[in-house]
Amino acid sequence: MEFASHMDRALHQARLAAGRGEVPVGAVLIAPDGSVLSEAGNRTRESCDPTAHAEILAIREACALLGQERLAGHDLYVTLEPCPMCAAAISFARIRRLYYGAADPKSGGVAHGARVFTHPQCHHAPEVYDGLAEAESAALLRAFFEARRG
Amino acid sequence: MEFASHMDRALHQARLAAGRGEVPVGAVLIAPDGSVLSEAGNRTRESCDPTAHAEILAIREACALLGQERLAGHDLYVTLEPCPMCAAAISFARIRRLYYGAADPKSGGVAHGARVFTHPQCHHAPEVYDGLAEAESAALLRAFFEARRG
Repeated sequence: MEFASHMDRALHQARLAAGRGEVPVGAVLIAPDGSVLSEAGNRTRESCDPTAHAEILAIREACALLGQERLAGHDLYVTLEPCPMCAAAISFARIRRLYYGAADPKSGGVAHGARVFTHPQCHHAPEVYDGLAEAESAALLRAFFEARRG
Repeated sequence: MEFASHMDRALHQARLAAGRGEVPVGAVLIAPDGSVLSEAGNRTRESCDPTAHAEILAIREACALLGQERLAGHDLYVTLEPCPMCAAAISFARIRRLYYGAADPKSGGVAHGARVFTHPQCHHAPEVYDGLAEAESAALLRAFFEARRG
């Protein structure tokens, strides 16, 4: 499958997550040479693991592949604003740039709520670029939650 | 090995972590009937996983054992104030009570910095009891970092 952009690829992971009955969020980790190192969608239900958010799974897989705890020079694309758990993991992994789609006023932890990257206790903050493919990312989530309520 | 308290058990896990060259933090998850469901120390280095904090490992193991994403009625004992990543995971897992030892002004996310449980974006906050076995918990960390600097 060809993707026009890394965010398209993350959206694909979000759609796959929706197909598994998971909250449709997708993430893609890009190596310094521009190649895709890992990609994931949410799997909290399937894995019975409240930490199995797309970002955490992509980071864990990338670190395992490289045999290291840190991903300096790597960039992360996510369809939704990361929650505080994922924002802190992004910081620990020393991710260089974070690109995300839809804002998450209800559960986000980057531009909302805990604003994890803004405190002195956050020892590394990535460059943050928001609003990429925002409409598609938000539409996926809206459709998922509407279907569950229906 | 007999432990006088759940926090003693968490301290034992922290000492085991130190022995592996990991930051000495330990966590123990207690089921509603008072039994130990899971216990862990940090393994970020060994596992090449920046998310492998004691709390995350204990929560993931407990959820896997029970086959569920949530641990309502369960209590977590940790030797150190959780970081924002672990605090958010504790919230997602619906942990009932959080007991912790030493405060962590440099990296904590409960009483310091992001203060994850204090925002409306945090949909569940545990009851928090701090300062248990504070001196032992802090001494372990101090010895570890002094040895590394030494």
